[in-house]
Amino acid sequence: MTDHERYEQLLKTIHTVKDLDSVQSLLGWDQRVLMPTNAAAARGETLATVGKLAHEIFTSEATGELLDQLTSYESSLDPDSDAASIIRVTRQDYEKTQIYPSEFLAEGARAGILGYQAWIEARETQDFKAFLPALTRLVDLRRQQIAIYKNAHPDVADDYDVLLNDFEPLLTAVEVDGVFDRLKQATIPLVQHVVEHADSVDDSFLNGHFPVEKLEVLSRKIGRSLGTTEEGWRLDPTVHPFASSIALGDIRLTTKYLESNVFSSYFSTMHEFGHGLYESNVAPALGRTTVQRGASMAWHESQSRMWENLVGRGRSHWDWATPLVQGVFPGQFDSTTPDQFYRAVNKLGPSLIRVEADELTYNLHIILRYELERDIFANRVELSDLPEAWNAKINDYLGIPVPNDTLGVMQDVHWGEGLFGYFPTYTLGNVVSLQLWKRIQDEIPDLEGKISRGETAELSEWLRSEIHQHGRKFAPKALLQKVLGTDTFDAEPLISYLTKKVHSLYGD
Amino acid sequence: MTDHERYEQLLKTIHTVKDLDSVQSLLGWDQRVLMPTNAAAARGETLATVGKLAHEIFTSEATGELLDQLTSYESSLDPDSDAASIIRVTRQDYEKTQIYPSEFLAEGARAGILGYQAWIEARETQDFKAFLPALTRLVDLRRQQIAIYKNAHPDVADDYDVLLNDFEPLLTAVEVDGVFDRLKQATIPLVQHVVEHADSVDDSFLNGHFPVEKLEVLSRKIGRSLGTTEEGWRLDPTVHPFASSIALGDIRLTTKYLESNVFSSYFSTMHEFGHGLYESNVAPALGRTTVQRGASMAWHESQSRMWENLVGRGRSHWDWATPLVQGVFPGQFDSTTPDQFYRAVNKLGPSLIRVEADELTYNLHIILRYELERDIFANRVELSDLPEAWNAKINDYLGIPVPNDTLGVMQDVHWGEGLFGYFPTYTLGNVVSLQLWKRIQDEIPDLEGKISRGETAELSEWLRSEIHQHGRKFAPKALLQKVLGTDTFDAEPLISYLTKKVHSLYGD
Repeated sequence: MTDHERYEQLLKTIHTVKDLDSVQSLLGWDQRVLMPTNAAAARGETLATVGKLAHEIFTSEATGELLDQLTSYESSLDPDSDAASIIRVTRQDYEKTQIYPSEFLAEGARAGILGYQAWIEARETQDFKAFLPALTRLVDLRRQQIAIYKNAHPDVADDYDVLLNDFEPLLTAVEVDGVFDRLKQATIPLVQHVVEHADSVDDSFLNGHFPVEKLEVLSRKIGRSLGTTEEGWRLDPTVHPFASSIALGDIRLTTKYLESNVFSSYFSTMHEFGHGLYESNVAPALGRTTVQRGASMAWHESQSRMWENLVGRGRSHWDWATPLVQGVFPGQFDSTTPDQFYRAVNKLGPSLIRVEADELTYNLHIILRYELERDIFANRVELSDLPEAWNAKINDYLGIPVPNDTLGVMQDVHWGEGLFGYFPTYTLGNVVSLQLWKRIQDEIPDLEGKISRGETAELSEWLRSEIHQHGRKFAPKALLQKVLGTDTFDAEPLISYLTKKVHSLYGD
Repeated sequence: MTDHERYEQLLKTIHTVKDLDSVQSLLGWDQRVLMPTNAAAARGETLATVGKLAHEIFTSEATGELLDQLTSYESSLDPDSDAASIIRVTRQDYEKTQIYPSEFLAEGARAGILGYQAWIEARETQDFKAFLPALTRLVDLRRQQIAIYKNAHPDVADDYDVLLNDFEPLLTAVEVDGVFDRLKQATIPLVQHVVEHADSVDDSFLNGHFPVEKLEVLSRKIGRSLGTTEEGWRLDPTVHPFASSIALGDIRLTTKYLESNVFSSYFSTMHEFGHGLYESNVAPALGRTTVQRGASMAWHESQSRMWENLVGRGRSHWDWATPLVQGVFPGQFDSTTPDQFYRAVNKLGPSLIRVEADELTYNLHIILRYELERDIFANRVELSDLPEAWNAKINDYLGIPVPNDTLGVMQDVHWGEGLFGYFPTYTLGNVVSLQLWKRIQDEIPDLEGKISRGETAELSEWLRSEIHQHGRKFAPKALLQKVLGTDTFDAEPLISYLTKKVHSLYGD
């Protein structure tokens, strides 16, 4: 076989595995959007079968041999070329995945399903003790994962790095510590300021009844104005909104319509659009390969947060959006001004639930989870003491009491499914979105003016050409370097943005 | 390994293959119901990948060895037991499938996709010549299939039997010839009688405008009354209605709403319900195995036709359905009587398009297709002469001219996708439905009275216990023997039913 034939052979395997990934995405989307509930157990089996096949095919010896044989071919290519990138990323994935036995991964999947079930039930009864055995099992499996990983890569500096690595390759806990400590120090006083001046912002006029059909019209109008099309996108209701890329040309957003809240689905649609746009803009030449995805979770979240917060919660957007909202809900907001909408959708303040938190307090919710995860895996906290530790931090950071564990330590699904190391990427996404925003404002003349007229095509194109088209070609930090000329996550632009926002809304 | 361990090993493979089948069903359902159109090419790739994997896993040497080793274990079991049936049916499938090289099947799939495309385009331009090359290729591939099959099974009596065998195992063309000749002889004079007395039935009062939302309400009400549930079934609109069983507990019906036709979606819902009920009633112990499906296409069609025609177009049904329809469309049918509805939905008469044909003429549409397929594979007709042959038969059987090939020989997708041997199962389904109906009327006291009150649970339960629960445990003819005490398809009950219906509606 020539090198080119070997590469074609590798591509065949990659296409097969990626097609199975796409099948998993569709199975997941279907399950969360429209599957009849009686099919839950069968769907679990189908997902397990497809996941196992994909893992077996990808981590087969044949894949390893091809990758070995392609080393010199890869070096002969421009490292940024599609072929070199596909070989490189595939090798990274292979080395990361093949160290885990199939049976270990299957056990992890099973424990995740059982954990999810235990979490659901314990939430119902507000009974953390009922959740503890499943949580203990999941943490234990993560410890085993860390051990397997360190066995293959003895140079790991911190156990937690192994967990981070699943979602944010090459990021270290020490770096996250630095960014989060700085952000925390800056945020806590801002929250106190907001609490002391809570009356400065009025959103009471947003109270009302908003029929699902109209909320859906509004979400569709937003989607179309941002660039979604009938031919390439879907928008469907679900319980916990997400975005899914089934294939290039098949991007599916979901949202949740709340008849008491006119803007919940509005912002969740903009958020998921950010994820969807990223996936839809990956270069077609990278389709059906390991490189056809966003660079990392933080990069992905930087895009969703940018559209949700920097566009959607920006003052300029409301010049354009005010008549749109008024048109969908005639009689309900006829005399509301853009400035009133802007202030209301930016009302800040401490609250218990992360997914309902505002831009400012959201990061504190993340930081406390991150700190607790660090403590768990550094053996500084017993799992049975988590509720107490949680409540103490909520009090320290937000100054509010936690009435029960369902509104506290058990509010998120992540730990119930065994996802540790995931939470920090949310706030890192906020961090990156502000790092990017500064550069974008420099490069797109009159960006705010354009947003105020609903013209976002230039912004989309900038993101496509600078970031999206590359998919996973560049590691997260290499992409930071390429786009921003630095390879560090820097909290300062976010802090400066939040500080300015707090003072403009809540006084000095 | 013990025999039991071998059986468990075989089951694992079967589960994997069946899970991949389920994935293919979902990919197909999604594509035809809601997938964004830009994803068409990617979906083709995904389907090809999953199909290829399923074929490779199922026809692997390991499967063949396990089946060989399990021969004596199988003989030691009750032949009707789940385990013996699963081994037997799997062996039959294995022997049938593994004779074809993967590449041959893949080529068939590709030719089917190209043929479909050519068919779509040729229909647009009413240009049979443009369709001819693709059709020639598809027929040639079927001839190759016949050759491969006969090489493995030299005792085949008629080439056409090989094609039939894909859809109706063990059925021979000679048998179909006999049933269809008899049915044709009986039907043609009935059609002439209807034409001569066309004014006897008035359906002009069905003209009107029926909004999609209300048609959907009507279809849902019908579905619920027959036994569909929110938890286990879906009903969605599509272009060409079908039913899909993604898993036990996940049955998806589709229909098409025509705002000019109040009953098109009504009867298509009942038809697809018949298919769905069959799949939903297979015994859970047969789930995720080769046996979890209907016994054959004719058996399947016997169920859909039974619900659509013998229940839905029966006089009793309209005692119950009349107030239902009146309630959904107030003001439109207020003074219509059950008898008027019954007569109108049974209006008969020759027409060009099979899928719009009535109960009587439908079988002639099928018989002419079957006869042409027989002629093609016996080299009695050139493909280029098909339009002429088609039009001659339409004239002979239905007495109407064919204005163009889009309304004639190119109206169905089947040949464009390479499906030969499939059409006869539609009419055989009608034949079986009447063979069954006689027995059911004997066994369920006051069946018509129950239908007139919308009580169909007893009928569903009879079908479940006598037919559905067995899945593919019994070969089509063995199931005929088991349920009816005969192993022959008998046209007489259908002929007698049609004769009676024609005379009761159109006079003697």
